[in-house]
Amino acid sequence: MIKVVCDLMGADNKPIDLISGVIDAINNNPDVFCYVLAPLNDIKEKLDSMSYNKNQLEVIDCNVEITNYDIPTKAFREKKDSSLVKGLNLCRDNDDISAFLSCGSTGAVLVSSVFILKTVTHIRPALSPIIAGKKEFCIVDCGANVDCRVDQLLDFAKMGVAYMEARGVLTPKVGLLSNGAEEKKGNDVIKEAHQELKKIMPNNFIGNVEGKNILYSDSDVIVCDGLMGNIALKTIEGTAGVVAKEILEMSKNESLEVQKSISKMLLNLRSKFDYNTQGGAVLLGVNKIVIKAHGAGVAETFTSIINQAYTLAKGDLVGKIKKNLGVEE
Amino acid sequence: MIKVVCDLMGADNKPIDLISGVIDAINNNPDVFCYVLAPLNDIKEKLDSMSYNKNQLEVIDCNVEITNYDIPTKAFREKKDSSLVKGLNLCRDNDDISAFLSCGSTGAVLVSSVFILKTVTHIRPALSPIIAGKKEFCIVDCGANVDCRVDQLLDFAKMGVAYMEARGVLTPKVGLLSNGAEEKKGNDVIKEAHQELKKIMPNNFIGNVEGKNILYSDSDVIVCDGLMGNIALKTIEGTAGVVAKEILEMSKNESLEVQKSISKMLLNLRSKFDYNTQGGAVLLGVNKIVIKAHGAGVAETFTSIINQAYTLAKGDLVGKIKKNLGVEE
Repeated sequence: MIKVVCDLMGADNKPIDLISGVIDAINNNPDVFCYVLAPLNDIKEKLDSMSYNKNQLEVIDCNVEITNYDIPTKAFREKKDSSLVKGLNLCRDNDDISAFLSCGSTGAVLVSSVFILKTVTHIRPALSPIIAGKKEFCIVDCGANVDCRVDQLLDFAKMGVAYMEARGVLTPKVGLLSNGAEEKKGNDVIKEAHQELKKIMPNNFIGNVEGKNILYSDSDVIVCDGLMGNIALKTIEGTAGVVAKEILEMSKNESLEVQKSISKMLLNLRSKFDYNTQGGAVLLGVNKIVIKAHGAGVAETFTSIINQAYTLAKGDLVGKIKKNLGVEE
Repeated sequence: MIKVVCDLMGADNKPIDLISGVIDAINNNPDVFCYVLAPLNDIKEKLDSMSYNKNQLEVIDCNVEITNYDIPTKAFREKKDSSLVKGLNLCRDNDDISAFLSCGSTGAVLVSSVFILKTVTHIRPALSPIIAGKKEFCIVDCGANVDCRVDQLLDFAKMGVAYMEARGVLTPKVGLLSNGAEEKKGNDVIKEAHQELKKIMPNNFIGNVEGKNILYSDSDVIVCDGLMGNIALKTIEGTAGVVAKEILEMSKNESLEVQKSISKMLLNLRSKFDYNTQGGAVLLGVNKIVIKAHGAGVAETFTSIINQAYTLAKGDLVGKIKKNLGVEE
């Protein structure tokens, strides 16, 4: 059985709105167990009204919340009774718990995860979402590290490969984000990383990827520093949103039939390009699986990230990361 | 009268395919004069068949081409008789010529422009396209400089402001591309640039802009290093293309009416988001107006960049750049 910790606090939506997503996840998968951190009083009535296997869920009563207004490093020290800190401690102290899941403050989740769970070795952990393009791929890093050295980009590549391997991809292909496909393109760090990646992962590395081709490259893993990754990811999201908006605007002059068809298509597209609605970003490089979904996450988001955590735990994400980084178990 | 140099060589399309765009431009604007560099034999027959005012055009016969396969620094030295080198020399040597326009190799145009026309002062010139979002804005830099210091970003801001002023924008608003809207976001260079921009252009600077909001920010100028600019620009282009493709694909299951409407809308969108079809990127910081349009540019591209050059010459782009950079005339 895969055990995960679900922190229902710190998000835009309340625990009572999110708990049904946890119930859906356990009802759909008898092999998953969820520890739920939330104020018991807030969710008890709703829980009692729902049908589920009691052996797959345990609520840990919790009334202290870390929010986006808290300073991450300070909150983690001062709010020892918060759902975030208690949840991560629980995860750290129990070998049979695989993952910690949250829709709370990104900064607080990152900082607290690193402090409490520790990194697998002396590396910088990276935040990696899955994007749906020609195929599903991950971008490593997407915001945890704004300035990166060459060796850090190489670690990101190794962790990204482990991530996609844990998702079942055989020999994941790695692309390096740059301002041109040629190997001479990029700043000094990118150019050196290109040469190193060719050497250390000849079977995985497929060369540079340009912004234009991010969504349609052959890469399973796109490697970049957190600043470039953040710009690329958010630009994809923003542009898809603007294009959808423009089409919707234009469709107002069309017949009702056209308007209906377009609304339907845009809804389809939204689920594809709004990387926040499905799953969350994984923090690669700490000793447990940590998934951070969007602050505006809803019940379905929790169902989705519990499934995601289940897959990654079954795929031994942390073990694969250690292996790829050459860490002795 | 505004005089411009049109280099019709080095592009994907042949001079004979491009010349009609030049003719259209002069037929629509009696106040513009074009020097055309191309093999006279290739275009003579077509030129003779067209109706235009002979006092607005002069062909400079030229048979040497610099292509994408040439190494820019080498080509510029070795191909003295190329249309690129001859055109830039003509531009440099005649005070009454305002601009040089090309669809040729970006690297060759940049290198040759800097060597021949020289920079207005000791700065790094920047390549800046116009993007259509909520409003038209420019991104400086978009690929000429992959690594930038703080003072270079400040120069980009000053030149970007001059660019938009020359296009008629009063008090252009400047945004700084970063991984978050808060002033503490970004790498050290971005964070320092943020503080400096607040000081040196308090009436223009409006803060950081995220990837998500590039297209819908209030900025007239978005400042970033050439690597980030290239990633952002190409990601916008790539994402818009993928979204359009997905919608087209989905529309295949719809009625003929819906398909027709959607094709029409996508064509509209294309002209908006394919930054190459309309106008070109301006090389800011050299002593004449240099516009580099897409290698796949067609006749209409030349009409468009001649109009663009006309506007910028009338708006005294180079004078405004010098003024904003504090260069004594």
